[in-house]
Order: sequence, then structure tokens, then C-alpha cells
Amino acid sequence: METFDLSNHSHRRLNVLTGEWVQVSPHRAKRPWQGQQEESGAEHRPQHDPSCYLCAGNTRSNGEVNPDYKNTFSFVNDFASLTSDFEGDGYDNGLMKAKSEKGICKVICFSPRHDLTIPELDVNEINGVVDLWVKECNELSEIEYVNHIQIFENKGSIMGCSNPHPHGQIWAQESIPVEPAKKAINFEKYFNNLGKSILEDYLKQELEDGERIIYKNDHFVVLVPFWAVWPYETMIIPMRKMAHITEMTKEEKRAFAEAIQQLTIRYDNLFKTSFPYSSGIHQAPYDGGEYPEWHWHMSFYPPLLRSATVKKFMVGYEMFGNPQRDITPEQAAKTLQALSNVHYKAQ
Amino acid sequence: METFDLSNHSHRRLNVLTGEWVQVSPHRAKRPWQGQQEESGAEHRPQHDPSCYLCAGNTRSNGEVNPDYKNTFSFVNDFASLTSDFEGDGYDNGLMKAKSEKGICKVICFSPRHDLTIPELDVNEINGVVDLWVKECNELSEIEYVNHIQIFENKGSIMGCSNPHPHGQIWAQESIPVEPAKKAINFEKYFNNLGKSILEDYLKQELEDGERIIYKNDHFVVLVPFWAVWPYETMIIPMRKMAHITEMTKEEKRAFAEAIQQLTIRYDNLFKTSFPYSSGIHQAPYDGGEYPEWHWHMSFYPPLLRSATVKKFMVGYEMFGNPQRDITPEQAAKTLQALSNVHYKAQ
Ligand SMILES: O=P(O)(O)O[C@H]1O[C@H](CO)[C@@H](O)[C@H](O)[C@H]1O
Ligand SMILES: O=P(O)(O)O[C@H]1O[C@H](CO)[C@@H](O)[C@H](O)[C@H]1O
Repeated sequence: METFDLSNHSHRRLNVLTGEWVQVSPHRAKRPWQGQQEESGAEHRPQHDPSCYLCAGNTRSNGEVNPDYKNTFSFVNDFASLTSDFEGDGYDNGLMKAKSEKGICKVICFSPRHDLTIPELDVNEINGVVDLWVKECNELSEIEYVNHIQIFENKGSIMGCSNPHPHGQIWAQESIPVEPAKKAINFEKYFNNLGKSILEDYLKQELEDGERIIYKNDHFVVLVPFWAVWPYETMIIPMRKMAHITEMTKEEKRAFAEAIQQLTIRYDNLFKTSFPYSSGIHQAPYDGGEYPEWHWHMSFYPPLLRSATVKKFMVGYEMFGNPQRDITPEQAAKTLQALSNVHYKAQ
Repeated sequence: METFDLSNHSHRRLNVLTGEWVQVSPHRAKRPWQGQQEESGAEHRPQHDPSCYLCAGNTRSNGEVNPDYKNTFSFVNDFASLTSDFEGDGYDNGLMKAKSEKGICKVICFSPRHDLTIPELDVNEINGVVDLWVKECNELSEIEYVNHIQIFENKGSIMGCSNPHPHGQIWAQESIPVEPAKKAINFEKYFNNLGKSILEDYLKQELEDGERIIYKNDHFVVLVPFWAVWPYETMIIPMRKMAHITEMTKEEKRAFAEAIQQLTIRYDNLFKTSFPYSSGIHQAPYDGGEYPEWHWHMSFYPPLLRSATVKKFMVGYEMFGNPQRDITPEQAAKTLQALSNVHYKAQ
């Protein structure tokens, strides 16, 4: 019998932010794949599509006309998941418990160019997206019932994105959703014990180790977390502990845009395809409280595993047991580190 | 402003078993869909496929030959996620924590017929699958390191199933995975307070209410849980509180097979397609302990939302915020209740 080895034997890793475990199966990537293949999505798109409801100047399904925007543009989702046109609070019937939930859902167009995606924008343009996120957080947090703001992007049809026009979403709502609520517990616990941010300490440890670092600049680090679930999952972490993105300086906003660009270019280069992912930013609650324990960060969950057409399915075991991954985070980091930071289309 | 109404306004519902919330957006099903379409999967398959590694008499990739089985057949997965060929326990390095995980992964063939799926088997054949699950649990729990046994099925290529031959899997392992661990907490809390099973009390409440019940016989109930996440998510719940499936009487095993058949036939009839899902059974730990608070049950998580080709994507908001659904559990139950219990291919 061999001695246990993280790069060779089945094991579990603890996500110290959520408190949950992920199962790692290093040897399993050797398995042949005869299952579903995704479309590679290498389509050619026009710069402006008259039938796209996000392009400048076009009419949306509710009759509103988009302005002739030159950089970014945001509006309230015409088919919002969260609404606020009702009064009342809940439903409490024995073991059936519900509560009303007020919210507002916005769509954020990253660029008027229908044919581009984040990794193809220049740093100034991505900086514009960051500025818009900050502006939205400032404005949405003014709404009385808003306590949480979730910024996210679904990129690629494989991620349920129904329009290829570069865009993300912001859902602002009353309750703290399940995922940030898990992290809040561990940020608080660590801060109460040690007076520090758990993410700041984790970041220090990662920087000393170096094995999982993909990119860094003066203000941000991009890494594959030790507890990554998705094959090429990454985090963008600000060096400075901040509860909300609204606290960034101008310089930090630009450094954040650079980190996003550097990461997403590598992603596209990985399988020479427009790399699909869902990304999201976790911040402290926007309820007016102080959150000295919080340290905001952005995560990317990309589904592709072996190629532009073979993804990782999070299904039976993962749904009923535990998230489970087939390559180690260290293998993923090594692959991402070796990639060029010049977009393959521009090479 | 209208008064808050579960069938009309955005809200959150509590899953009393996991302690987690799901967000419900009743009005959102009206949204037009221009995104990814799945293949409908209506293919014709032979009864025996010489290239299938699960068909009787065929040779698998590791050179082993399948027996000429007539009913069911199980074997250790040739590309197992969990293994047990190592010594040692863990890795504890500051905020990077891991532990070794021993386990065994088995494949369970439901029938020698390559062209059938569970809803097309007769009750005797499904009873044979139930008997094999019970036998496997009895045998696997004898392995010294095994504390948890996860029975599951991924049905359909959209659920990552790489071979259409009717089969499921069993992963037996040292640790209690994240999902059953959440339920264990709530089973225990309720039992310690009230001396009863939370699921038994919930079932009583559902039976009195009736709105979400799809099927029942003398020993089992099929229902859409009040907190369902997936559009047509269901649970099969035994009337009698049992910690493990190994406790079932012969009659109960047959009644369980009937419930599985009745549910999966309705599923296939919903969109007149071989309905994809992941299903799984949550049981008490198999560590030799007594678990009077536990009440085992089977859940089905099917991804289809509107048709055989349009699924629900659990992506950005769902990954970073909270599971979110677009029709209410009551709407889903009403649709399932109205379906015939005769398979559409046999009609
Ligand atoms: O074992 P299979 O059927 O080849 O693989 C499938 O089920 C596994 C367990 O849910 C998942 O880890 C895989 O991603 C999925 O493709
Ligand atoms: O809002 P969209 O882009 O139409 O929809 C997409 O993102 C939403 C938020 O993650 C999901 O609820 C939908 O299932 C997905 O298709």
C-alpha cells in the first residue's frame, strides 16, 4: 500500500469559507468519455444584431427602446425573478414555511458590440463595467428593502445564457441568499477569534506557497482555490480587506479590471474557444451595518473539463452526496499558468 | 398593491430537511426562451449492443467479461472516483485542510435489455433492482471503513450519463457527504425535541393537504415537496419510519417498486420523451449506530422545464445566491397529477 498523497489518492478538501467539503478524485481524469458533447459555439456574430434585445437602439419585448449607448447600459429585467409589487410577509403552516421576498433584477450590458465578450474588451472597457457595478451597488443599496446585492454573469449557452450579447446581471433583494450566508458565518467566526479576515490569511498562505497562483498585480491576486469544485474554478481576491466593491479606489478598480482581463484571456486560450462560465461577486450585506470581518471576492465557475465540448456534469453523486472533481486544483493551476496572456484570436 | 400570494409573488421556501431556502418566482415561466435547446434523445436502441460495456456477455475496458445475466448485475466501477489502496489520513496545513477518503464505487445494471429504462420495466423487474440495492447495502456496510452508502442514478445524456444502458451507481465511503449531513442535523433536532421523525410529520401534513400528492399505495407516497428546487422534483417517502432500506419487508419492497414505476411512467408521459433525471436515496449512516430519528427517502431531480428540449439552468444566481425555480411546486404537482399512469409508448 502506498502512503496517502493529495495528487494521487481520493480525498476531501475543506472550503474554509463555506465550511463545506469537496471530494477530489485525482486518478479519475483517465476515464474515457462517451457521453454528451457540447456545441463548441464558434459562431460568427455581427457587431450589431437588429434582432438582439440588448443591442443599442433596438426595441425590447416590452416596447422600450434601448438608448444608443456607447459603453455600458443597465436596465430592469423585463422578466425579473424578483419583484416588489406586493404587501405582506409570509406563510407559516406547520412544516411548510415560506416568506415573501422583495427584489429587483437588472441587466448590465458590458459593451454595445454584439460580437465581443469580456476577454476581447480592452482594460478601459472592462474598467467601465467595474465602474457600473460600483454605481449600481451604490444606487441599489439605497432601496429600503435591499440587504444583499448579487452581481453575476452567465457566459455561453452551456451556462443557460440565452443571448450572446456581452452582459451580466444584478439581483438585489431582502434576504441574504444561502451561499453568501454560509461564508458570513466563517468570516465572522474567524474574525471574532483572531481579529483578522480569514480570506486575507488564506491569501497570504497561497502567496507564500505559490502553486495555485495564476496572476497578480499590485492590488489583486487570481488563484485556483485549494477547495475548487469546478475543473478550472478560480477566485479574484483583493489584497486589501474590503466589505464592499464600493470601497475600491480608482487604482484598485483599474487593477481589478486588469485581473479580470488577464484571467478571462487565459480561459479563452485554454481550449481556443469562447470559454463558458458563471462568475459572481460575494460581498458583505448592504444593510447599513459594519462588516469588518468581510472580504469581498469574485469567483469563476467554468464547466469545461477536457475540451471545448466535454464538460463536467455535477449530477447524481454531486447532487445527493457532495461536489466532486476529477483533476486536482494543482493540476488545473499548472495548466492555467502555462497559457499565454495574449488572446488566441489576436495572436 | 396586492396582498402577498404564494402562487403569484416572489418568495422563499424553507426546506425543513436541509435547513436551506429555495427562491420561487411564480410569474417567471412566462419568459420567452431563446437559449440552448437540448437534443430530445428519441433514438432507437437495439436490445443488445455489442459495443456496450454493460450488456451481458460483453468485454469491459479492463478485459473483464460481463456474465450472461438475466435480471440485474453489479460490479466495481472500472474508473472509480473513490478508492482504498492507500494508508494515511490527512493533510492539515493552516487554512488548507484535506483528509484522505476511502470508498468503493459500484455500477448497478437494472436489466440486460439495452433498449429499456426504469419506466419501461415491469414491477417484478423494478422489484429486482430494489432487492439488489438492499443486498448491496447489506454487503457494503460490512466493509470496515464504510459509514455512508449513496445509491443514485443519472438518467439521460443531459444528466451526464455516458451510457444509455439502464444502470445506476452506488458509492460507499468513509465520510458522511455534505447533503445527507445537512439532513442528519434536522432529523436529530426534531427527534430530540418531539421524539418523532420530521419527515413522518411532514408526510402527515402533506397527506391532509393533498395538493402536492402524485401517487400513494399502502406503504409509499410520491409527492412534490413544498420546497422543491428542480421544476418537477419529487420524493418517494415510506409511510413507516425506517433508517435504512435494508429494513423493508418484502411487501414494502414491492410497494416501493410500484411507486418508482408509477412516478417514472408519469415523468416519461410529461413531455412524451425518455425523461432525464438524477435520483438518489438518502439513508442514515451505515456505521453500526442506531438512528431512530432517520427516515430514509428517495428524491428525483429532473432538469426539464418546458419541453423535452428546454431545461432549467442552475447557473449564476443559483450558484452564487440560492437555488431558484420558475414555476411553483403546486403547478408542477397539478401537471404531474393529470398525467396517465400508462406509458405513452404502450398507449
Ligand atoms: O460515472 P459516470 O456515469 O461516468 O459519470 C457521471 O456521474 C458521476 C457521478 O454523479 C459524475 O461525477 C460525472 O460527472 C458524470 O458524468
Ligand atoms: O436570466 P437569464 O439569463 O434569461 O437566465 C439564466 O440565468 C438565471 C440566473 O442565474 C437562471 O435562473 C436561468 O435558469 C438561466 O437560464
